[in-house]
Amino acid sequence: MIDALGGYGVATVHEAQDRAGLLAAYMRPIYPGAAISGSAITVLVPPGDNWMVHVAVEVCRPGDVLVVAPSSPSSNGYFGDLLATSLKARGVRGLIMDAGVRDVATLTEMKFPVWSKAIWAQGTVKASLGSVNVPIICAGLHIEPGDVIVADDDGVVAVGRAAAAKVADAAKQRVANEEEKRKRLAAGELSLDLYDMRDKLAKLGLEYR
Amino acid sequence: MIDALGGYGVATVHEAQDRAGLLAAYMRPIYPGAAISGSAITVLVPPGDNWMVHVAVEVCRPGDVLVVAPSSPSSNGYFGDLLATSLKARGVRGLIMDAGVRDVATLTEMKFPVWSKAIWAQGTVKASLGSVNVPIICAGLHIEPGDVIVADDDGVVAVGRAAAAKVADAAKQRVANEEEKRKRLAAGELSLDLYDMRDKLAKLGLEYR
Amino acid sequence: MIDALGGYGVATVHEAQDRAGLLAAYMRPIYPGAAISGSAITVLVPPGDNWMVHVAVEVCRPGDVLVVAPSSPSSNGYFGDLLATSLKARGVRGLIMDAGVRDVATLTEMKFPVWSKAIWAQGTVKASLGSVNVPIICAGLHIEPGDVIVADDDGVVAVGRAAAAKVADAAKQRVANEEEKRKRLAAGELSLDLYDMRDKLAKLGLEYR
Amino acid sequence: MIDALGGYGVATVHEAQDRAGLLAAYMRPIYPGAAISGSAITVLVPPGDNWMVHVAVEVCRPGDVLVVAPSSPSSNGYFGDLLATSLKARGVRGLIMDAGVRDVATLTEMKFPVWSKAIWAQGTVKASLGSVNVPIICAGLHIEPGDVIVADDDGVVAVGRAAAAKVADAAKQRVANEEEKRKRLAAGELSLDLYDMRDKLAKLGLEYR
Amino acid sequence: MIDALGGYGVATVHEAQDRAGLLAAYMRPIYPGAAISGSAITVLVPPGDNWMVHVAVEVCRPGDVLVVAPSSPSSNGYFGDLLATSLKARGVRGLIMDAGVRDVATLTEMKFPVWSKAIWAQGTVKASLGSVNVPIICAGLHIEPGDVIVADDDGVVAVGRAAAAKVADAAKQRVANEEEKRKRLAAGELSLDLYDMRDKLAKLGLEYR
Amino acid sequence: MIDALGGYGVATVHEAQDRAGLLAAYMRPIYPGAAISGSAITVLVPPGDNWMVHVAVEVCRPGDVLVVAPSSPSSNGYFGDLLATSLKARGVRGLIMDAGVRDVATLTEMKFPVWSKAIWAQGTVKASLGSVNVPIICAGLHIEPGDVIVADDDGVVAVGRAAAAKVADAAKQRVANEEEKRKRLAAGELSLDLYDMRDKLAKLGLEYR
Repeated sequence: MIDALGGYGVATVHEAQDRAGLLAAYMRPIYPGAAISGSAITVLVPPGDNWMVHVAVEVCRPGDVLVVAPSSPSSNGYFGDLLATSLKARGVRGLIMDAGVRDVATLTEMKFPVWSKAIWAQGTVKASLGSVNVPIICAGLHIEPGDVIVADDDGVVAVGRAAAAKVADAAKQRVANEEEKRKRLAAGELSLDLYDMRDKLAKLGLEYR
Repeated sequence: MIDALGGYGVATVHEAQDRAGLLAAYMRPIYPGAAISGSAITVLVPPGDNWMVHVAVEVCRPGDVLVVAPSSPSSNGYFGDLLATSLKARGVRGLIMDAGVRDVATLTEMKFPVWSKAIWAQGTVKASLGSVNVPIICAGLHIEPGDVIVADDDGVVAVGRAAAAKVADAAKQRVANEEEKRKRLAAGELSLDLYDMRDKLAKLGLEYR
Repeated sequence: MIDALGGYGVATVHEAQDRAGLLAAYMRPIYPGAAISGSAITVLVPPGDNWMVHVAVEVCRPGDVLVVAPSSPSSNGYFGDLLATSLKARGVRGLIMDAGVRDVATLTEMKFPVWSKAIWAQGTVKASLGSVNVPIICAGLHIEPGDVIVADDDGVVAVGRAAAAKVADAAKQRVANEEEKRKRLAAGELSLDLYDMRDKLAKLGLEYR
Repeated sequence: MIDALGGYGVATVHEAQDRAGLLAAYMRPIYPGAAISGSAITVLVPPGDNWMVHVAVEVCRPGDVLVVAPSSPSSNGYFGDLLATSLKARGVRGLIMDAGVRDVATLTEMKFPVWSKAIWAQGTVKASLGSVNVPIICAGLHIEPGDVIVADDDGVVAVGRAAAAKVADAAKQRVANEEEKRKRLAAGELSLDLYDMRDKLAKLGLEYR
Repeated sequence: MIDALGGYGVATVHEAQDRAGLLAAYMRPIYPGAAISGSAITVLVPPGDNWMVHVAVEVCRPGDVLVVAPSSPSSNGYFGDLLATSLKARGVRGLIMDAGVRDVATLTEMKFPVWSKAIWAQGTVKASLGSVNVPIICAGLHIEPGDVIVADDDGVVAVGRAAAAKVADAAKQRVANEEEKRKRLAAGELSLDLYDMRDKLAKLGLEYR
Repeated sequence: MIDALGGYGVATVHEAQDRAGLLAAYMRPIYPGAAISGSAITVLVPPGDNWMVHVAVEVCRPGDVLVVAPSSPSSNGYFGDLLATSLKARGVRGLIMDAGVRDVATLTEMKFPVWSKAIWAQGTVKASLGSVNVPIICAGLHIEPGDVIVADDDGVVAVGRAAAAKVADAAKQRVANEEEKRKRLAAGELSLDLYDMRDKLAKLGLEYR
């Protein structure tokens, strides 16, 4: 089901979930074209301290996505190519980082996808503890360990485990409907007609001059 | 004349217009290399509500550029691949969106160029009216329906219809001058000499130590 | 030594310098993949006035990097393809601009690398003086003329001339160590073990549940 | 009529004008409690250059409000206590500055009200021309010379001269209605009932659980 | 217990809760000196649409605090003096608004305390539904209906109902300790000695030159 | 001389120093009306860690101003009423904090002036070292220990020790000139005439229509 949700993409999954579950618009991929889905391993880190990211690697399994959030805002580069090498060795599909990352040229070569708030080389310390696999707020969204993460060029969306099947069904339905619509729109039909909007607009008082 | 202005590009047209007419620096293309020009169809939309974009499609003709601004700031994804399919079918050359867009991977494949404030999947509703082809403020610029829009990797510039011929002439002149300058600069001549700046700088008190 | 530092890259040089010397995270390359190093020619410019950039060209020599900062924040496009042509003719390796640049499509074709705060066509005047080769604050960092600048996809770092040899040594050491680590991490070893972190974490009270 | 509009306040005038005409939310008063209205004298200034503000003083008359916008974003302190002394001597009621101001302690003592984007001492030069009494974009709004400006703790709103009488009437109506509503709400009546909202909400599907 | 938590203030409650539970730093009081605590009534609103705030009034009881968050970022003025009159009539202690408010001069006179992201007169519509008393993300924090809200000049903190007693105890302890410390610090004792920091600092390598 | 500079205020000292030395516009006082000057004790702190502030207290002497900057951006509340009590006991005149502070209601009662980037209760740890009395970048300005700090409602300016006497003289001159100007402007004379600007404006091409 995680792969199915990944196949529908962020915008469709978000709509299928009643327009909920998106991370903030500032979360951008470090290179275009990446698209992943996976199960969230969450990490709460102190500002400027990436020690808990190292701790979290141990609990990652194939198919997981690492989701990291600082306890107060930070743009430091918490993550680079060595950590990516380690995560890749464990089958992790990508990283969602509500802070900065670095070594992005190497990460791009490695095709290790990352969505982050910033790209910045500023180093971190290893001095204070945080938490792994606890509920976190990442880029304005409440995320639980095990939530399904879908990320692509449109951003990042999370789906609660309990809702995943229902959301996948709604997404499937939505995609099926869109194919037909796309053809009719490409042939020049107007969405005003396709969606029967003219009456509703007229009732609200839309005037053509 | 619209195509001529497009050929000169944003920076040249902006200079030819006495350094006026630029949209804010946050308006960025969703993929590099796009460059368009066209006649503005303007749309004023409520925050988080894209209904009027659907209404505006009907008035678009080949060669137009759709220019959308919310009545208060929004980063929602007002526009995706279905609307792009519809606009493409009508010969629209691109979109200027002072808010968010989504489905950018598909828009990139379709080569439908968009300049926007954000890329974000956050959906919109269809509940309230706005206006089509009224004067709007888009990314800090006052735009009238029918203004000539030029957009490329440097951003977006608008030229009033009445001024378009004059601006195109000034741009043509500017480009003609630049070719000669480019050669002399490439050969090692200094712009200090090329533009006769040394005297003016000396009068203002520039000292070399 | 400047080329050696460039070879290590921004993140490594920053760490080798005890995590100091980075410009702010908002300084981004205008195209991916550029990586340069060079000796800083510094320029202090008034807001919206690029006259001193023209003055600075004269003092540039092969291997230099031009570093420009406004006396108060500006996103204007201080720099375009004509200035780049001139700098390229003088062997300058790139530009660090704590403001805006324009003509980025042409700069990308020319392969003239630029790191800037903004891409914006907004023009500048030539009315007021500034200073060349004085200490400046560029994107939050104090830079002296002659500082070594290293810039790549991770951002921009500066190294004082006096410290350059020592930093290059530390960077060399760091890179040598990383190769071995990368192999072990790729083979599945955990950084928790590679860096002997488990004891320190336990002492601070890390609990596994 | 200008005084009448000032009496209704920003929020009421904005609503009476069909929710149009507000400057951006970042325009804040330098001290609480100020409330003015007046006729706009507009000034377009270069970034970091306040010369045209001095030029504009000459055209100000009693009852005017000076409205200043830079041609590209600036937070410099364009205005201080000397200019305020001059404006006060001419009967000007206040300043709307889409940039910075300084000497705010003295301005507060003088009770010269200012709404600005920033408070910053950064000085300006007097080197380049701008324009007085031309249409400008100030904090995201298109303002014409002679527009009625109303400013208070809620921000700044502008009303076109031609619309001023109609807006004043609508504002008067609105205020008259509000007094009765305020009493009923203070007595515990719900706005759901006062505005007959329950049916409309039910039709849209509101459920109580 | 809610009043006890209010008495300790935001900073103390936040520390007593292991440094968790703060809303983002951009949430500021509309006038200085306000300090409240209460039980959260949560409201999820569409961007630019305040209809659900009216719906929420009905469920408010004495001692509650209304906590409102938009489903995507907005600075519109969702709340003014009429809604405040209504809430005051129902004994509500204040408002936490992750968006804009208006009529702040009147709200200040009424002594109705508000913490908000913005002060802006921009009006809202009443066109779309949202939700009352569901979990929301407000200014970066996950808030459940019934959470204890404490707000003062330092910002806003939320405490889960289940944890409230424990947090109040920890806060009480903390305050008791601070009184003694304050006296010793006022008498000139150094916190380095008061907290026995010198040894730990020396072990980490602190050097005095 | 420090007191003399304080008496002239931030705007005058900044101008007397050739428009240099200002901290960024985001540095604001926690209450209006505070105005101080003093000798800088500088502190470089890790993000989210205030340990070095405690260390710095020991080196503070009467007449000093504590100037704190994090090594990467932070809005955490590094400073509250206990540290203020300690600094007050040592005769420190105020705090310049390029991060957050808390307990601002108490700091206001104590009349301990603070200029900061944010007001936020978010706590800090005591885990990592920084440096005291080293050159720092604070809010975009390079500050050396012992620099003279002047702060008031207009922001914060720093003057290097070596330049202090010269700057104080220039400031004195400036203030002397302003008194006469203020009177003439108050009497209705125009600054255009007072500063003999008309000729220069005419030469640049200013036209009156």
